[in-house]
Order: sequence, then C-alpha cells, then structure tokens
Amino acid sequence: MNNGTHNKHDASDEWAMLDRIYRILTEEGYLGGSTSTERPPVVKFEHPAELKRLIHFPMDEKEPSSEATIEQIIRQVLHYSVRTGHPHFHNQLFAGVDPYGLTGSWITEALNTSQYTFEVGPTCTLIENAVIEKCLQLFGFPATGDGILCPGGSMSNMYAIVAARFRAVPDVKRTGVTNLPEPLVAFTSEDAHYSITKAVHWLGIGLNNLIKVKTDRGGRMIPEELERAIESVIASGRRPFFVNATAGTTVLGAFDDFTAIADICARYALWLHVDACLGGTAILSRSHRHLLAGVQRAHSLAWNPHKTLGAPLQCSVLVVQERGLLHECNAANADYLFQQDKFYDISYDTGDKSVQCGRKVDAIKFWLMYKARGETGLEALVDNAFECSRYLHELVRTRAGFRSVLTEFQYTNISFWYVPSWMRWTQEEPPTDRWWQRLYAVTVDIKERMVMRGTALVGYVPLLHKGIGNFFRMVVTCHPRPTRESMLFIVDEIERIGESLGKENNPK
Amino acid sequence: MNNGTHNKHDASDEWAMLDRIYRILTEEGYLGGSTSTERPPVVKFEHPAELKRLIHFPMDEKEPSSEATIEQIIRQVLHYSVRTGHPHFHNQLFAGVDPYGLTGSWITEALNTSQYTFEVGPTCTLIENAVIEKCLQLFGFPATGDGILCPGGSMSNMYAIVAARFRAVPDVKRTGVTNLPEPLVAFTSEDAHYSITKAVHWLGIGLNNLIKVKTDRGGRMIPEELERAIESVIASGRRPFFVNATAGTTVLGAFDDFTAIADICARYALWLHVDACLGGTAILSRSHRHLLAGVQRAHSLAWNPHKTLGAPLQCSVLVVQERGLLHECNAANADYLFQQDKFYDISYDTGDKSVQCGRKVDAIKFWLMYKARGETGLEALVDNAFECSRYLHELVRTRAGFRSVLTEFQYTNISFWYVPSWMRWTQEEPPTDRWWQRLYAVTVDIKERMVMRGTALVGYVPLLHKGIGNFFRMVVTCHPRPTRESMLFIVDEIERIGESLGKENNPK
Repeated sequence: MNNGTHNKHDASDEWAMLDRIYRILTEEGYLGGSTSTERPPVVKFEHPAELKRLIHFPMDEKEPSSEATIEQIIRQVLHYSVRTGHPHFHNQLFAGVDPYGLTGSWITEALNTSQYTFEVGPTCTLIENAVIEKCLQLFGFPATGDGILCPGGSMSNMYAIVAARFRAVPDVKRTGVTNLPEPLVAFTSEDAHYSITKAVHWLGIGLNNLIKVKTDRGGRMIPEELERAIESVIASGRRPFFVNATAGTTVLGAFDDFTAIADICARYALWLHVDACLGGTAILSRSHRHLLAGVQRAHSLAWNPHKTLGAPLQCSVLVVQERGLLHECNAANADYLFQQDKFYDISYDTGDKSVQCGRKVDAIKFWLMYKARGETGLEALVDNAFECSRYLHELVRTRAGFRSVLTEFQYTNISFWYVPSWMRWTQEEPPTDRWWQRLYAVTVDIKERMVMRGTALVGYVPLLHKGIGNFFRMVVTCHPRPTRESMLFIVDEIERIGESLGKENNPK
Repeated sequence: MNNGTHNKHDASDEWAMLDRIYRILTEEGYLGGSTSTERPPVVKFEHPAELKRLIHFPMDEKEPSSEATIEQIIRQVLHYSVRTGHPHFHNQLFAGVDPYGLTGSWITEALNTSQYTFEVGPTCTLIENAVIEKCLQLFGFPATGDGILCPGGSMSNMYAIVAARFRAVPDVKRTGVTNLPEPLVAFTSEDAHYSITKAVHWLGIGLNNLIKVKTDRGGRMIPEELERAIESVIASGRRPFFVNATAGTTVLGAFDDFTAIADICARYALWLHVDACLGGTAILSRSHRHLLAGVQRAHSLAWNPHKTLGAPLQCSVLVVQERGLLHECNAANADYLFQQDKFYDISYDTGDKSVQCGRKVDAIKFWLMYKARGETGLEALVDNAFECSRYLHELVRTRAGFRSVLTEFQYTNISFWYVPSWMRWTQEEPPTDRWWQRLYAVTVDIKERMVMRGTALVGYVPLLHKGIGNFFRMVVTCHPRPTRESMLFIVDEIERIGESLGKENNPK
C-alpha cells in the first residue's frame, strides 16, 4: 500500500511496522551484524547537548506522523545507540544477546501478558516453573525448593533479604522493624555489589546495620573477619540475621569461600544468600562449576542469565530452599486478583509470591536458549568465554606495557592497566604516587579516545577501598562468541591509543 | 539454507530465527490478527496437568535442537497462550498492545542495554528524559520535577513511599526505621491497590502502621475519614507521613477527591502520592482529564501507560515534584559504575536514582507511540475507550437480566452481574442472602464456560470489604480498538452462557 505519507494510520499499516523492524535492525547492524563486511562502530558517540540537536527527543507531536517519519526517527535512534552486541563491546557485565533469547523476548513482548495468574499466563507459568526447577537442580538446591524471576539482580537480592527477615522475625509483616528489641544486622563483603546497600536502606534496616566484611587481595570475603564481625555485633546487643556471599564480584570476579561461610552461618543460625548474579553462569560448565562449590548450602541464591550468558535484559532468577516461603512472606491475599473459587488449581497462580503485581514474563528467554542449545551448547559458550578471557589474562600479564591487577585468573572479568612507553622508564624505580595518579588519568584518556573512535568499549573502574585507582575491567561474555583475535584487537587498540597519547604529551 | 534439521547452529542460522518470528506470530494470530477471517479463540484452555502433557516444559535437552524442533515448540507455546490482543479479552487492566509500542519494545530488546549510564544508553537516556518531561507536563508538575521509569506500578508506588520516608526522616538511610521515637504511619484507602500494603511490609514500616481509610459506595476515599484517621494516629503517639490517593481504583475505577485530600495533606504536612497507574491515561483526553483535577498538588504520581493505553508490559512512570530527590534518596555512590571523572556530563547518568542497578529501557515504547500517533491520535484512542465503556455501562444498566454494580459511570472498568432468567423471579421480593450466594456462584460458572469456549475473557472479582461477592469487572482498553459491536458481543455471550446454565440447572 502506497500510503506511507498520509497522516492517519489504519490498523494494517500499524502492524506492518513490526514486519519492517527486523530489516531495519539488521541494516543498522543490531541483529547478527558480524557477517557484514563493513562493521559499524561500537558507538557513534555524541555529547548529550549535540545528540539533542541531532534527534528531536521532545514529545510535542500534535498530529500522527507519517510512516516515513517514524522509520526515520527509529533509524536515528539506532544510529546513535551503543551496539552492545558488537564483538568489541566489553563495557558491562552483559554484552550481546543470544539470538534464541532475543526470539524469546520478542515472543514475550508480543504475548503481552503478566506472570501473576495461570489464567492469563498458562504457558508462561509452566515455563517459569521449568526455569526455577532447572535452576534448583543446577545449584544443588532440593527439588522441593522454590523461586521467582525478578526484574534484575538487585531485586532478587532484595527478595532474599525480605525472606530472611521474615524467617528471623515471623511477625515482621505486621510489626515492621520499628519496635524490635534488637536491631537486625546484615553482612556483606566490601567487594560485594551495592544492591545489598540499597536494599538495606529500602527495607528500613539502615546502613548502620550493614557490616561490610573485609576481603582479601582478590576480593574474597575473609571468613575469619566475618566471624569476628558477627561476634562484635552480638556483643553490641544487635541481632545478626543475614549474610550475603558473592559468586563473581562485580569488579574482580572473585568467588567467596561458600563452604567456610556456610559453616559460620550454620553456627550462628544466619540466613546465607549467595549473590551469583554474575558468577552463576559457571554452573553450566563442568570445567568451571567448582567455583560454586558449597552454594547448595545457601538458603537462597540469585543468578542473572542476562549477564555473561547473554539472555536479553532482564532475566534474573532467585531460588530458595523452602517452598511456600515466598508466598507466605509476600502474600497480601488480594481477593480481586487471586480468587480462591477459581475452577482450576490455583496453586499455579504465582502472583502473591511477588512484591510486584504485574510481572513481566522473563522466563521464556532462558527457557528457549536452553531448549535450542541444550546442555552441551550452553556449556560450549561458557567454556569459550573462559578460554578467551584466560588468554586475555595471559596477554595483559605478559605483554610489554600491560600490567594485570591480579596475578591469578579468577573469572571472565579481566582487570589491567596499560602503561604507555613514555611512562615506562619510571618502572625501574618504585612508582611514586604521582606516577600512579598519572596512570589512572591515562586510563580515562584512553577510554575517552576509544569511545570517540568507536572501535571498542571497555569500562574502567577504581577500587577505592583497596587504595587502587582507575584500571580497565574488561568483561568477556558468551555473545557474540569471543575469539583470540577479538581479545587481541582490544589489547592492540588500547596500546595504539596509549601510544598516540604519548605523541601528544611528549612530542619529540 | 536447507539445514534446519542438523544439530549444530552457525551464527547466521541462529539470527534467522528473528526473521521468522514475525511470520510465526502473525500466523498464530498474535500480531494484528483482527483482519483474519477465522479468528483464533482468546485462549485454548487446558488445565495445568494436561498442558504439561501437551508441551515438554522441562529443560532436559542434552544436545542442541534442530531449527524445526525450536519452531515447533514456539508454535505450541503460542497455541496455548492467552491472546491478550484479542478483541474479546477484557480480563485485566491491560489488553492488546499498541503496535508502535511493540515496535519500541522489540527495539529495546535488540538494543539490549541498561538505562544506568549515558555511556551505554545515550539515546535511551534522552528518551527517558523526554518521557519524564512529558509526564511532568501532562500532570501539571513543574518542569523542574524529576521522575523514573520502574518495572511496574507496585515499584513506582514503593519508590514514592521511600522518597516520602526520606523527606520525613532525613537520616533514614543510615538509621533505618528501627529506632525512630515515633513509628511512621502511612494511609491509603480500602479500595486502593494492594501494592501499598506490600510496600509497607517490605519497607519495614509494618502493616500495623498502615491505615486503610474508608471509601464511599463508588470506592472513593472519604476525606473526612482520612482526617479522622490522621488525628487518631497522632493521638496514639505515632507519626503520619504518607497518604496514597488513587486515580482509577483497580476494581471500580474510582477517582479520589484529590483537592480535598491535598488540602488535608497540606494541613498536616504529609506527602501526597497519587497512584494513577490505571486512571492516569485519562490525562490524554481533553474530555476526561477533569477526573484528575488536583493531582498537580501531589508530591509524586505513578502512571502505567502499559495498562489501558496499550504500551507493552511494562511501562510505568513515577514523577516527583522535586529534582535531585530520587538521586539523593537512593544513591549508593558505587564508584565502579558511576565514575566521577568521566569525560561527559555525568548528570545524565541516572543509575544512582534507582534501587535497581541494571534497569530496562521501558521508555522507548511510550515515546514511539507518542511520536507515531501524536497528541490527537492518542486522545482519539482514549476517547474511543471511554465511549465504548460508557455504551457498555448503559447496556448492563438497562438490558434485561443485567445488573450494574454502580449506577454512575466512573471509568472504563464496568462492573455488573448477569442474572439468568431462571433466577429472575426472585427479584420481585427482596433478594435473600442465598439468592446472592447463588448469583456469585453463577458468575464463576459463566466465567469457567467462557474460558472453556474461548470466546471471551472477562474477569470476576468480589469486593469483600463492601460485603459484595463475585461480579464481572470488564475492562475496556484502547487496543485493539473496541467498538459497540465488540461490547455487545460480550453481553450477548454472557447472556448465552448464563441461559445455557439454566437449561442444565432447571431442565423443563
């Protein structure tokens, strides 16, 4: 139909947009663009003010737009977005999507339903149950356990604290934490994710009642320090109730000693939660699942298949040992939604397990990935990410000018500096504070140029509690499948940029 | 390529699935199926046990599946899912999606990025800002206000309570609510959404400190009752801090008197939040926005374009009067993500405003809907939903056998019973309790048959605090565009089923 420019849309016009979006996304390099000969940049970066001049963001259209106008604005948005699926995007704990996961998410969006009742999500409910059962099995939890999919790892972790609090103070729903004889205290490590901090604030526990336990050089919680902290809290008249251990810390990729921590939690009858949002993916590999030894002793565990595994954002699973707990803890018994006189088995209505009412169907993404790839297919993806990141670790440990933050390989996060040749002479002496400050600044400079060139995206981070300034944290994920060449490209590119900085700073 | 049955996928095979999914979804009646001559049922219902026999849900595939197998399981899932986009789906506060919204969500999924930094979401950040600015303007909030998109209305409401608590107790992040001299107390109405109850539990305030204010017959909070409750809380030595008013209650679609409630909140210096998750959509219509008179005086307001307006689930906006508050309240200053030495204007990094870390890009859906349809296009959709629901209201008020729960028209939720002819003789006398119980049971029976026939889906609900048992709550939404015929169909179908029950119960 040749009516793309008129101002009124009829229903078939409108749906035709969905037919075109696959082609548009492919042409703009967002769907499997790796076969293209001319690869678009990771990002065509513009500063906010400039980007606002390039795209008309304000919503001030009085009348309907033509189809051509709509397509044009979509193409503009895509043109200036970040290609997280580009082989050289290593900036976050996620990167490209698994195409089967993306298929699942497009289905989810088209189904447009909520996970709360079997009635409006029959297949979705059973798919979520299958994902929970699989995760229970993978992490060594009993088949009688339970779980829920959450809008992100921070929410999964918060659910765990709420469940732990409910077990510690059975009447907490009614009383809150306002009049407890002893304030509740939670423990996490100083390298753990900040979501625990945010949750402790939201849940009314207060940051004064969160202890950040010291970690070793690699970022692992020191079990003796945990025990000492617990003793000290008890001595102060407060009540320990929750310990968060981490499988794959955000920056260094450290795995806590779950067995030692579980022993301590058992001794003091504390809830042990494992934040495996990042590191849980290792469970899919026979060669690497040993990193998670002991997690089966946790009361709860959170895992994000949306991180390195490449399920589309978001897909986060919380599993708990005890069936019925999530429902008991979170139910509000809203009779308008969860009628007890329905004609089907209402134990399949999961809506009252959650703090949300409408809940997005995130399970299909991982379910379809598993169905499509099977156990061996997923394992191969995970093993490849480990192999490539180990290769990268060796590169930055041994190549001239590169300096690894850690000697040992921990996970697929690789942390390093590049010391340009014009800074290297000082390495003969013990580097001074000023030298380090300059190196931290050089890291930022390299990053800026990398973004401006659009050749690659690698994040930098400081670890202030360890007295370390900015270094590159490059995350190697499963999609798009990394290769030795793609690892080498980043190292070459950082070297190129670092050296070019030298030419500007120290012109000969 | 003719390799759909081999067991290893290469990358181009994998991406080809995305090319096929539009066709599959269309063939299965999920994308604009309204033009099809043979319309599929709203649902082909199977009980959980039977559905588990029909589809292999367990994730036990050892090896990769063939493309044909993957397509087959997708088709099975679609075959047994609920078609929320069917013209006769009126079961929830959402229904069909806006095709431009769905286009936006497919883009979001393909972009696969997070809303936390400008760096990885430059366009997404500015689109979210545009949506927030538009919502501030629509609801009469100052342009200097702020906002955030949340994973659902329950989360938006919880954000509001957290912000209110932070204003009431500035040091609450550190101290929690554990040692407050006076417990904090929140107020909502007995017809308001249960998310307030769940939030008060999660936030450690406790249900003992939540007052559910009485409503009038239509479900509107009675302002005098609110004031009385506030006085009584103060007299008990506790501290009122937060009032939730509702624009469009879940069951009856009532709009509270925002001006009267705002006056009371001003008098006692309480935070006023308006849960406009359902009713906020009325703001888009010049004819109906008067329902929201006074909301501009609230401190915060939540609106879900994903409900009647048809943005794909989920798309929920929270707006607040005060810029900076969300950041100040929720920040954890994670230096690994929100580096202060970035080379661009980091005021565009929104991640520390949120309790989540990774945050889904939900803004594109509504943004694209607005860009495509403009102000007048959206208004026409909203007005049509109002017109059709008003027609339905008249139908159930006047047609023989139908009985409206409310005399007056309030919103696009229409509540009614169908009294089959074989029950009607008793109407001459005052109906007995037994008669009512039978009518409630008949409502459930009609619903069951409706599901089994797959002809329509309309929810039923009780309002126990008003002493009312099950009645139909039919929600009229913007998509797919309702018509007088589609309204009439439901009424006819309920009548048909109700009468057929009679034949079984009272065979002549």
